[in-house]
Amino acid sequence: MAKKQTKTAFQVAFGKHLEKLRTERDLSYRQLAQRCDVDFSNISKIEKGEINIQLSSVLQLAKGLNVNPKQLFEFEFDLDKE
Amino acid sequence: MAKKQTKTAFQVAFGKHLEKLRTERDLSYRQLAQRCDVDFSNISKIEKGEINIQLSSVLQLAKGLNVNPKQLFEFEFDLDKE
Repeated sequence: MAKKQTKTAFQVAFGKHLEKLRTERDLSYRQLAQRCDVDFSNISKIEKGEINIQLSSVLQLAKGLNVNPKQLFEFEFDLDKE
Repeated sequence: MAKKQTKTAFQVAFGKHLEKLRTERDLSYRQLAQRCDVDFSNISKIEKGEINIQLSSVLQLAKGLNVNPKQLFEFEFDLDKE
């Protein structure tokens, strides 16, 4: 897991989408964490856009949600935002 | 940029797709690097699946290629592979 860093608009957008995917599946932070190799306290931080996660965590979250990794990026994001 | 790590099937798949997007645009490593905040020597390593990059680098590569970040993940990947 990457260390905590400054929030960025992209991290925040990713986090909001992750939260949507998780809650649509009626999973708590803890339940999602139990399905993948990401600490449950970090899931909350990722959803708030506080962590600049690595590809390995993207894959873990995809496994935990049982979605293709690309679905984690299926949100609108304006490239000019940052 | 995250430190160099062990190759994983997901990193390799991501890297191959990145190479496809870059070469489709007739961009060299150096040309892509000039368009984004990623060192040109790292672009080669990312394409080989040698770096577990962070969300910030995903965004930079998307900017350099002028694609939506989600397009960087539009490749097939079997979750059971790792």
